Amino acid sequence: MEYIKEPMEIEERSFKIITEELGDKVFEEREGKIIKRIIHTTADFEFADITVIHSDAVEAALEALNGGCRIYTDTKMALSGINKKKLTQLNCQVYCLVDDEEVAKEAKDRGITRSIVAMEKALTDKETKIFVIANAPTALFTLCQQMKVGEVKPYLVVGVPVGFVGASESKEVLLKQNVPYITVKGRKGGSTVGAAIINALMYMIE
Amino acid sequence: MEYIKEPMEIEERSFKIITEELGDKVFEEREGKIIKRIIHTTADFEFADITVIHSDAVEAALEALNGGCRIYTDTKMALSGINKKKLTQLNCQVYCLVDDEEVAKEAKDRGITRSIVAMEKALTDKETKIFVIANAPTALFTLCQQMKVGEVKPYLVVGVPVGFVGASESKEVLLKQNVPYITVKGRKGGSTVGAAIINALMYMIE
Repeated sequence: MEYIKEPMEIEERSFKIITEELGDKVFEEREGKIIKRIIHTTADFEFADITVIHSDAVEAALEALNGGCRIYTDTKMALSGINKKKLTQLNCQVYCLVDDEEVAKEAKDRGITRSIVAMEKALTDKETKIFVIANAPTALFTLCQQMKVGEVKPYLVVGVPVGFVGASESKEVLLKQNVPYITVKGRKGGSTVGAAIINALMYMIE
Repeated sequence: MEYIKEPMEIEERSFKIITEELGDKVFEEREGKIIKRIIHTTADFEFADITVIHSDAVEAALEALNGGCRIYTDTKMALSGINKKKLTQLNCQVYCLVDDEEVAKEAKDRGITRSIVAMEKALTDKETKIFVIANAPTALFTLCQQMKVGEVKPYLVVGVPVGFVGASESKEVLLKQNVPYITVKGRKGGSTVGAAIINALMYMIE
């Protein structure tokens, strides 16, 4: 079996193929980097059509990341996919409360998702600048409600929950918020997409 | 904003929608559970057409899982997506060596991916019964080479690397191996797909 074993060569070839197959679809340089990294992680070219990037999103995200910010994710998987080496270089921290014991207990008592309780808890930390909601529509709804009443003003909301119940609707609500966001329309999204967006943004910083 | 907040209701509705939209596509019961959980995690119905399940895969996997087996994953993300509560109930363990310091050093010295070195190291543990290769074609190629020479006989190989360089090719090699496998043809796959397959199998055990 003959195959390429050198990691940088694999990545370079991958992005070359993606750019070629996107053909006529051309993006603003930094937005293109985000969209191509999503396609790199999913092998799904539909993301070229459904990804929506707010005009302030890249600038605001880079300001937050350059300042060594706190990032909150709704799942351990999204947290796990964020490049820790780059994160440490930038002096940023990422956290996720969904597996917290108190969160689990409160969610059970109230008969609601752990994602809602975890998000409520995360929102009490006013230092969080970037939210990555990659799975739970309920977490994105909770965040949008708090933004609406002015309780929280993130630098960036990556809102890419995946699924069949509430995912699409929660992203439509996000699109109406006055906040820098990156989202994908419809049902698709997920942890790998959320992590790819944060990684693409971090890789823009030398 | 009105939305469903009760986790079991969200999951039930999701699977009902997926079954409805699959329409005429009907699967063997346990294979259907795997395919629907992949669609649940990706919102991508293409997986109904590209998922390939070896006829011995479900039986062999359930035997291994019921016996409290070791599972090896090629990424921390796939490891992170596997339901730990269920895993502990079954007395199974999951591990991943890709972030191991020795692995990183050796990969750098040899100019190859950490995934290859991590897989080589994992293969020295003869107790591993299930391999989940969700990202790195190089890891799947390495595993297939060792299976070919009879060095390792897993109960199940979940081979679902995603991407543009080697992913599809490595899965074609897996399809030719005499081993119970679950794979998806072509470029698609990834950590969420790998974890969904293991979770679907574990949920079959009461």
